Amino acid sequence: MNGDSLGLTNLRNQNISSIKSYDPNWRVHASQPVDYDVRIIRELLSPSNSSLAQACGVSDTNQNIRCLVAIDSNVQAFYGERLRTYFEAWRIDTHWVQVSGDEAGKTLEAAMRMTEEMTSMGILRRTEKIIAIGGGVVLDVVGLAASIYRRGTPYVRVPTTLMGQIDAGIGIKTGINFSLYKNRIGTYFAPETVLIDPEFLRTLPHRHVVNGVAEIIKMALIKDAALFDLLEANIADINADNLAEVDSPLEEVLFRSIDGMLDELEPNLWEQGLDRAVDYGHTFSPSLELRADPPLLHGEAVAIDMAICVALAHNRGLLSKVDADRTLRLMQNAGLPITNPMFVASLLEEALDSTVKHRDGLQRVPLTNGIGRAVFANDLTLTELTNALAFISEHQYAYAPETVS
Amino acid sequence: MNGDSLGLTNLRNQNISSIKSYDPNWRVHASQPVDYDVRIIRELLSPSNSSLAQACGVSDTNQNIRCLVAIDSNVQAFYGERLRTYFEAWRIDTHWVQVSGDEAGKTLEAAMRMTEEMTSMGILRRTEKIIAIGGGVVLDVVGLAASIYRRGTPYVRVPTTLMGQIDAGIGIKTGINFSLYKNRIGTYFAPETVLIDPEFLRTLPHRHVVNGVAEIIKMALIKDAALFDLLEANIADINADNLAEVDSPLEEVLFRSIDGMLDELEPNLWEQGLDRAVDYGHTFSPSLELRADPPLLHGEAVAIDMAICVALAHNRGLLSKVDADRTLRLMQNAGLPITNPMFVASLLEEALDSTVKHRDGLQRVPLTNGIGRAVFANDLTLTELTNALAFISEHQYAYAPETVS
Repeated sequence: MNGDSLGLTNLRNQNISSIKSYDPNWRVHASQPVDYDVRIIRELLSPSNSSLAQACGVSDTNQNIRCLVAIDSNVQAFYGERLRTYFEAWRIDTHWVQVSGDEAGKTLEAAMRMTEEMTSMGILRRTEKIIAIGGGVVLDVVGLAASIYRRGTPYVRVPTTLMGQIDAGIGIKTGINFSLYKNRIGTYFAPETVLIDPEFLRTLPHRHVVNGVAEIIKMALIKDAALFDLLEANIADINADNLAEVDSPLEEVLFRSIDGMLDELEPNLWEQGLDRAVDYGHTFSPSLELRADPPLLHGEAVAIDMAICVALAHNRGLLSKVDADRTLRLMQNAGLPITNPMFVASLLEEALDSTVKHRDGLQRVPLTNGIGRAVFANDLTLTELTNALAFISEHQYAYAPETVS
Repeated sequence: MNGDSLGLTNLRNQNISSIKSYDPNWRVHASQPVDYDVRIIRELLSPSNSSLAQACGVSDTNQNIRCLVAIDSNVQAFYGERLRTYFEAWRIDTHWVQVSGDEAGKTLEAAMRMTEEMTSMGILRRTEKIIAIGGGVVLDVVGLAASIYRRGTPYVRVPTTLMGQIDAGIGIKTGINFSLYKNRIGTYFAPETVLIDPEFLRTLPHRHVVNGVAEIIKMALIKDAALFDLLEANIADINADNLAEVDSPLEEVLFRSIDGMLDELEPNLWEQGLDRAVDYGHTFSPSLELRADPPLLHGEAVAIDMAICVALAHNRGLLSKVDADRTLRLMQNAGLPITNPMFVASLLEEALDSTVKHRDGLQRVPLTNGIGRAVFANDLTLTELTNALAFISEHQYAYAPETVS
């Protein structure tokens, strides 16, 4: 199409300065850079530690800072006083909102209540931050609210649970559950910064420690044989206090888990690729986690899913008997379940169908071909699922769920 | 922090292959590329035209295509049959969902209903597209639903209104209103492609034509004096049929509007910069548009806001009397309102306060310093607002809202 066909003669006679070329096809091209820090900071709540204040926006030139602090009831109970003391010491004008930390509270309503708090505070669009302090649920819900309020309001993540510190809190995913569909609604929205203080773990109930260990075992299985060895050597010592201790061998467990996770996430931050090794243990569990009764924690559902994948890999000849044994033993020694009445073959098949939609038409099931390595399967059958469950039932020996508090 | 301080002696003795450096500070860096086409395509619904089918995913190798088509009741009434014929001709398996095209329907509930349709269709995450066909409201609501479902499902925009074709439909913003806060909730989420067929405009009620003209006048005022001249020369001829006509002078109006808008959007797609000339006319209107009774269309609210900005600019000596006159005359000749009982000084001041939050603490009000150029003001006063309204009331001469149908 040229100028004449658009009847521009008249225009040209009018001596218009900027005649454009009249190609009615445009291509919009741009690139959105994302940069954020993930830092392990000890004594984060000590008033002498400036890290959190800086994350709120305090600087030499700006002392007049407001922020919206979102916490759950556990953070309120264990750290509410220290947080208030900290923000007062830095003269940060804080508004507070409490968010449910339970999986059942991961709802659209919770995210919308959060946006109402932003409106009532009159939070500025860019310079006033939201500080989310809590476990994975708080970070997911607050992250979603931050991402959709005015199409994005900056937020800082302070994960306080093991799951949050090594998994849910350090990526850019936000989300809520929608009816029984886990994380069906969400966004990718990077925090400005992630501040991790292992000291928070000291108040974590043991079941939630174990919950996080499931994702650490995942990381070991898919990419870090050294982490697997470290876990095996220290599994009896994994508890809240030991994880929080400076210079303990478990500090390396934390470090390697974070490092491995970021290493996997960074090149695929928006999940352009759907063959994701970090989806290990997340094939069957997303459909079944919320249906189990009594409810499973996320890491527990992931563990049961991982056990199935260990058995699938062994039965396919990808994983030796010794390594399959080691893995199932490690999970059980960690206090994780490897079976659940909801994880039967027919429901596994259904869950796989649902995951296939999430993975755009292919199974893309990560399986270990040796500890510390992963491949993807696209041709799992119902028979294999049945056989995997049989294999697991022969390798249950120590787990007693009632001992987990 | 080095290896020794983490107690790694034991690990080293175990001959671990990949000892990491133990710096507990990570920086995650990535960049998300966005590319999408905006194309003017004539006879888009002719079965011989492959453009829409290709946008749905039809290719030489893939004939087995499903898609979710979201339309409003006007599109259903005027184009439902032709759309069905088109998709049948291309053997596309379509699922349909109807979305309200009214501003009052731009709600969270509408977006969530849309996601329920995606679930019930079982839409694949990446290869099955959502095709949104309608005005700005449909595109905004469907865009939001697409962006939050599984953290992003691809969608195609087919704007059918003038507002959609030159403004709401060609950028990457999605949104819903939240109580009386316009677009308070939304995301940035680029469509895969935007297909614009001016033929759709033939069925647009005249009031909605005029509604779109407001945004075209905006584009002329902030950056395209030639477009302003073209509008002035053709204002009496602006109607649905003339806009839809091939090779009419109004086709250039469409072209320049789209071109100008994309030129403004592309370098600032995620609004990293909040000094946005395209926010001209969007300073007072976002708070007042939804409060007017009888309701205003978006472009009408923008026009009233623009008239205030014309007066503000003139009173500041930025815009000559001649150019202020020309502008207010052009708006009124287009059939746009330049006053409204809701736009009084006290409410303008309130609206400005709200916009200051949206603009991160500064007014950043775009004003024309000559037709086709914009500067930003950060120090508007209540007195100036009052004086601006007085100026406008002296320059009302032709507009009679009851003649607009």
